[in-house]
Amino acid sequence: MTEMHKLRMGMVGGGPGAFIGPVHKMAAELDGRIELVAGAFSQSHERSRDAASTYRIDPARAYANYQEMIAAELSRPDPIDFVAIVTPNHLHLPVAEAALKAGFPVMSDKPATATFAEAIALEKAVAESQLPYGLTHTYAGYALVREARAICSSGQLGQIRKVAVEYLQGWLSQPIETTGQKQAAWRSDPALNGPGGCIGDIGVHAFHLLEYVTGLQVTELNASLLSVVPGRRLDDDCTAMLSMDNGAGGSLMASQVAAGEGNGLRLRIYGEVGSLDWRQEDPNRLRLKWLDGPEEIRHAAGRYLSDDARVVTRLPGGHPEGYIEAFAVLYREFADALAAWKGGSVAPMPDTLPGIVAGVRGMRFIDRAIESSRSKSWVKF
Amino acid sequence: MTEMHKLRMGMVGGGPGAFIGPVHKMAAELDGRIELVAGAFSQSHERSRDAASTYRIDPARAYANYQEMIAAELSRPDPIDFVAIVTPNHLHLPVAEAALKAGFPVMSDKPATATFAEAIALEKAVAESQLPYGLTHTYAGYALVREARAICSSGQLGQIRKVAVEYLQGWLSQPIETTGQKQAAWRSDPALNGPGGCIGDIGVHAFHLLEYVTGLQVTELNASLLSVVPGRRLDDDCTAMLSMDNGAGGSLMASQVAAGEGNGLRLRIYGEVGSLDWRQEDPNRLRLKWLDGPEEIRHAAGRYLSDDARVVTRLPGGHPEGYIEAFAVLYREFADALAAWKGGSVAPMPDTLPGIVAGVRGMRFIDRAIESSRSKSWVKF
Amino acid sequence: MTEMHKLRMGMVGGGPGAFIGPVHKMAAELDGRIELVAGAFSQSHERSRDAASTYRIDPARAYANYQEMIAAELSRPDPIDFVAIVTPNHLHLPVAEAALKAGFPVMSDKPATATFAEAIALEKAVAESQLPYGLTHTYAGYALVREARAICSSGQLGQIRKVAVEYLQGWLSQPIETTGQKQAAWRSDPALNGPGGCIGDIGVHAFHLLEYVTGLQVTELNASLLSVVPGRRLDDDCTAMLSMDNGAGGSLMASQVAAGEGNGLRLRIYGEVGSLDWRQEDPNRLRLKWLDGPEEIRHAAGRYLSDDARVVTRLPGGHPEGYIEAFAVLYREFADALAAWKGGSVAPMPDTLPGIVAGVRGMRFIDRAIESSRSKSWVKF
Amino acid sequence: MTEMHKLRMGMVGGGPGAFIGPVHKMAAELDGRIELVAGAFSQSHERSRDAASTYRIDPARAYANYQEMIAAELSRPDPIDFVAIVTPNHLHLPVAEAALKAGFPVMSDKPATATFAEAIALEKAVAESQLPYGLTHTYAGYALVREARAICSSGQLGQIRKVAVEYLQGWLSQPIETTGQKQAAWRSDPALNGPGGCIGDIGVHAFHLLEYVTGLQVTELNASLLSVVPGRRLDDDCTAMLSMDNGAGGSLMASQVAAGEGNGLRLRIYGEVGSLDWRQEDPNRLRLKWLDGPEEIRHAAGRYLSDDARVVTRLPGGHPEGYIEAFAVLYREFADALAAWKGGSVAPMPDTLPGIVAGVRGMRFIDRAIESSRSKSWVKF
Repeated sequence: MTEMHKLRMGMVGGGPGAFIGPVHKMAAELDGRIELVAGAFSQSHERSRDAASTYRIDPARAYANYQEMIAAELSRPDPIDFVAIVTPNHLHLPVAEAALKAGFPVMSDKPATATFAEAIALEKAVAESQLPYGLTHTYAGYALVREARAICSSGQLGQIRKVAVEYLQGWLSQPIETTGQKQAAWRSDPALNGPGGCIGDIGVHAFHLLEYVTGLQVTELNASLLSVVPGRRLDDDCTAMLSMDNGAGGSLMASQVAAGEGNGLRLRIYGEVGSLDWRQEDPNRLRLKWLDGPEEIRHAAGRYLSDDARVVTRLPGGHPEGYIEAFAVLYREFADALAAWKGGSVAPMPDTLPGIVAGVRGMRFIDRAIESSRSKSWVKF
Repeated sequence: MTEMHKLRMGMVGGGPGAFIGPVHKMAAELDGRIELVAGAFSQSHERSRDAASTYRIDPARAYANYQEMIAAELSRPDPIDFVAIVTPNHLHLPVAEAALKAGFPVMSDKPATATFAEAIALEKAVAESQLPYGLTHTYAGYALVREARAICSSGQLGQIRKVAVEYLQGWLSQPIETTGQKQAAWRSDPALNGPGGCIGDIGVHAFHLLEYVTGLQVTELNASLLSVVPGRRLDDDCTAMLSMDNGAGGSLMASQVAAGEGNGLRLRIYGEVGSLDWRQEDPNRLRLKWLDGPEEIRHAAGRYLSDDARVVTRLPGGHPEGYIEAFAVLYREFADALAAWKGGSVAPMPDTLPGIVAGVRGMRFIDRAIESSRSKSWVKF
Repeated sequence: MTEMHKLRMGMVGGGPGAFIGPVHKMAAELDGRIELVAGAFSQSHERSRDAASTYRIDPARAYANYQEMIAAELSRPDPIDFVAIVTPNHLHLPVAEAALKAGFPVMSDKPATATFAEAIALEKAVAESQLPYGLTHTYAGYALVREARAICSSGQLGQIRKVAVEYLQGWLSQPIETTGQKQAAWRSDPALNGPGGCIGDIGVHAFHLLEYVTGLQVTELNASLLSVVPGRRLDDDCTAMLSMDNGAGGSLMASQVAAGEGNGLRLRIYGEVGSLDWRQEDPNRLRLKWLDGPEEIRHAAGRYLSDDARVVTRLPGGHPEGYIEAFAVLYREFADALAAWKGGSVAPMPDTLPGIVAGVRGMRFIDRAIESSRSKSWVKF
Repeated sequence: MTEMHKLRMGMVGGGPGAFIGPVHKMAAELDGRIELVAGAFSQSHERSRDAASTYRIDPARAYANYQEMIAAELSRPDPIDFVAIVTPNHLHLPVAEAALKAGFPVMSDKPATATFAEAIALEKAVAESQLPYGLTHTYAGYALVREARAICSSGQLGQIRKVAVEYLQGWLSQPIETTGQKQAAWRSDPALNGPGGCIGDIGVHAFHLLEYVTGLQVTELNASLLSVVPGRRLDDDCTAMLSMDNGAGGSLMASQVAAGEGNGLRLRIYGEVGSLDWRQEDPNRLRLKWLDGPEEIRHAAGRYLSDDARVVTRLPGGHPEGYIEAFAVLYREFADALAAWKGGSVAPMPDTLPGIVAGVRGMRFIDRAIESSRSKSWVKF
């Protein structure tokens, strides 16, 4: 393998009308380490080839399903190096299991699976395969999320006392799942999506970000899940009170009926002597407030940032990086892990890249939030 | 009474070291309708006279307690026209009762009383007196809070689906009540403050703002009150999930241990087609977001604002008004009510000015939040 | 004179339709040190008494012109202590001269006079009278302008290399002076306003702020003054390049036809190692950026602020103070100066309060900008 | 040519230590239409191959100079389709001339050339070649710059009266060109950079953005160029007053010694009834202010945006796109133009993509600004 070699990615999902498929491709390829070469993009050869054409890849490697892709690629001299899963949630487990069984590392969109039970099954499959498994909790790839994480672990804020995370969108304010909007349709169908609507689609991102940045774990929660839009089968609005393993209290709010909001993920962490505040829609700034000092804004690419934050930035200060770049950081770390991995032993994954452990915790969170809301009570995590 | 006559205010509380006393004075006098002329500022003649000197009022009208003030003023040819109460909470009820009994209208700092039972007693006293009673929920005086209220009542946002209010301060992050900080000391003492710490001091402001702007009422809540700082006797951090009388869900967050925060009151209201967002620390702007249109920022004094918002503004656009000006709006409305009121019948109070009804609801909210947190369960309001 | 005594203010100007008269009253009285008791508010007894009624002062002290006011007040046992001038510009000099000659200190709205020649005459009158003279360059009263000034004088930014000040308004975007808008009418009439339109109304504020904060002086300038609205007799838009006495370059932009702007005064100062940025429409924050460190936001009332900034704040952090409060700081400093002054010698004025020196420089700036624009060339200050 | 074919790019410049080379690669490849396959990255085979390895391209296509690249590629069966120029400025003309002569379209970094005379020569070369030529004025690729342009051309703001553009950086606040910083070194050397320092590096971006968005042209200017850092051979700070061809006035400010600034490009346009404000460091929002209505913030991907703005966005609202994405828009438009172009006639270029006309105007601007500053006078454009 020369230095020129790029890792070859085979994608499952991401056909016509998909949002996240093209994002995975752009993100995977951005840093020049990975190349999309094959895919089971859609459920017919014709539509899959259409996608291949759009992606400008060889139509011979456009498959009608993941089983076919895995079989065909295994028999090529230049097979794919890993599988990216960008399907609706109900396929995450079967695709991942098949890929791992065939020896392909997996990079999966979130949530890990459709149900908590499936997550346990996936955890087992990953462990048995000893293969790399990454989960694209995109926001973990932002430089200033890395900075926030470094700040929390450094203890600069003092002991963490209070956490507040929110993720507000408005795009499901109307019942667009009934009008052919493909993204809304599968997300509102329990069979394709799993039992958690908003909580599973974006609440789990908020939950992950919270634990990822603070290093704390939720131990108890009390959630209220609502289906605000008449006729909607899954929750579209969630509020939860949290208790963390260090005694801190917290709150989590997620909504897809917050009319006018775009992609309003925000995390605030309050410690004894200071606090931090990060907003996805203004991702290149991290706000810090101190008990006895001026407010501080750390900017992406600042020379004063932690190494963890600096290594994931591509441009000088003032040149905005965004969602695709953050996503690409996760793929770059996955590529690094694959490059470092020799096979034959458990793949060492960097702790900055979300993996199966985060995946299982996320699915557990969804499960517990649904149970808490159903019983209208506090539940153990 | 010539046009020159200003209403004469007698204040109870507001002596040396007080924060809110001088604010009441500046606010009451700002629009030239009211004049502070007398006070029981502190609990000795000497300290009360010191305060009188600071306030530049006649030392002969500096009293050692409210009973003395009421008696002395009643015997003057130019008695006070009303009583302003700015004491710690435990005195709100007795002072108000005594003033009302003596025929003096009352303008009281919030919360209405120290306990819910007291609030009921006060409600009775107000009703029996038929006198004007106002409650300084300051934030109700901001022009853009008035605009937000007008927007909600107009139905422009569509049916309200979700509300989120937060009030974050950091000044009690350390146990400063043990170091002689007077403001912190009485607020942390249940005997002087009542049973609600943070929930009673600022949570009640957040609650009031929410109901004031939306016109909705909380019907159920599930709260978690924490005493974060070791040794503190009352709650200093509160989170609550809410259910509103139109079915909307909500959340309320209040904290005095949010290190680095100043006076971070923020209200967000989400309707079917749009949402609004107001922040006390940026009070002259109101943000509106729409399902299908650009974000909008309405500015104080904009010609396009509702009449309700425009009448409370003193300056042209771009000239910031702040906390004192908002406070003064309430005093101006109180003065207007007094000027219009003839006595002998129930005083008509403008519905823009918080009064005893808001006071009772606020005390009920504190009571229910404490009960919910104690029982770790949802409670009816 | 007991401690109760407030300084008695007599106002010239500020009758019906005035904007700045009521602001002077509110600002003068806010801190309880000064009381408006008399005025030549308008040019007839009737309209002046109407104003007196609005201000709730004794109609017997409502005069038809300043000469009458000065004469009548001199013969009272309780005469005014000083004169506030809030007329159109062409009266600033005659009123000030008459007041000073009669022994009354003067607090004048800006600009000092209508023309530079008048400013020289006023400077002489002030010097001969040995009386206190203050000039309400309002923005000098903001806490964070004081902080900015302290930062510049401390050298924290390194040597200042570049300054940029702008003051953008949009209210004269249409020819409203022709439709009876009183504020616009006199400002657009050279006989009442003087030769500098936008440059004299707000450009001079920007100029003052620049010199006030940096401690530097403009030595050369190259200006372009435009009359954008057809038919307007004075400039309504100004741009200038500046050279400062330490070699720094600069720019000044002022406009009253910047459609959509409110009162957008902003000052940026760039030094060798850092810079500061203050915006009047967000006055309680001061932004600092550093060559090698995070951006910083200093908040009004922060304990970390300089003493100069802290002493002018009335409220705890997070409680916004605004335009009236800034204005009141200047009146408070004027009152302090009057209280400290014994008469019989030159009045010592605090260097934080703009006075006649600033007034003369401002008028010189207007004069030089007009000359530069006319000659289309750089001119010495 | 099948649908799979990507356009093959050969790059000149972009070797070790370069900033803009990797950006061109990421941008060119982002949308899957272009692939970097060859380059004269540096001036030795060894260093050029090192770069090829970093870029993961075939080391056989790493050349030591552009002449070699052009000759070698012409003899391949799969030659490059176009040349991207990312060298210091003095090479822009010779490389472009050679490429065009050999029949290769050119995509060049800005400014077009090192001097105005060279720009005229380049214009001639482009015309003679009839080949596509694009110029990467990056900021023209942002969705909300496109929106701003559509707004200006629609007349929504009324006639444009005033323009203000600024571009503030701080990275040259210290003489880092003397300490081996490669980016600073060539930019501070007139032989490599041309005669315009800051004015040529970023002033020209500001100038381009201004004309690109408004559709107006500068007709006169009065500039002041300073070399603030001792020993620096070129200007590092620029201020200019402008006159536009519709009579509007304007200002342009560019600095590389604005300590603390990152990449602060901002454009404000004032019309009769409204204004717009775009800031590169917050690129996904466009602020509009109106004479008689609320402020408006348009967000990238809003359904209400003009088609011109919508077609250049890849992600749903709230998912930030940044500098690389804007850059990629220009490459995508260049790729589209190449795909549409049949050869044998003048290449039709979309008017959204800056080309040689913009390049010549930019070089003229630099030339005129230097002349104005030298003569301290207004000059015709």
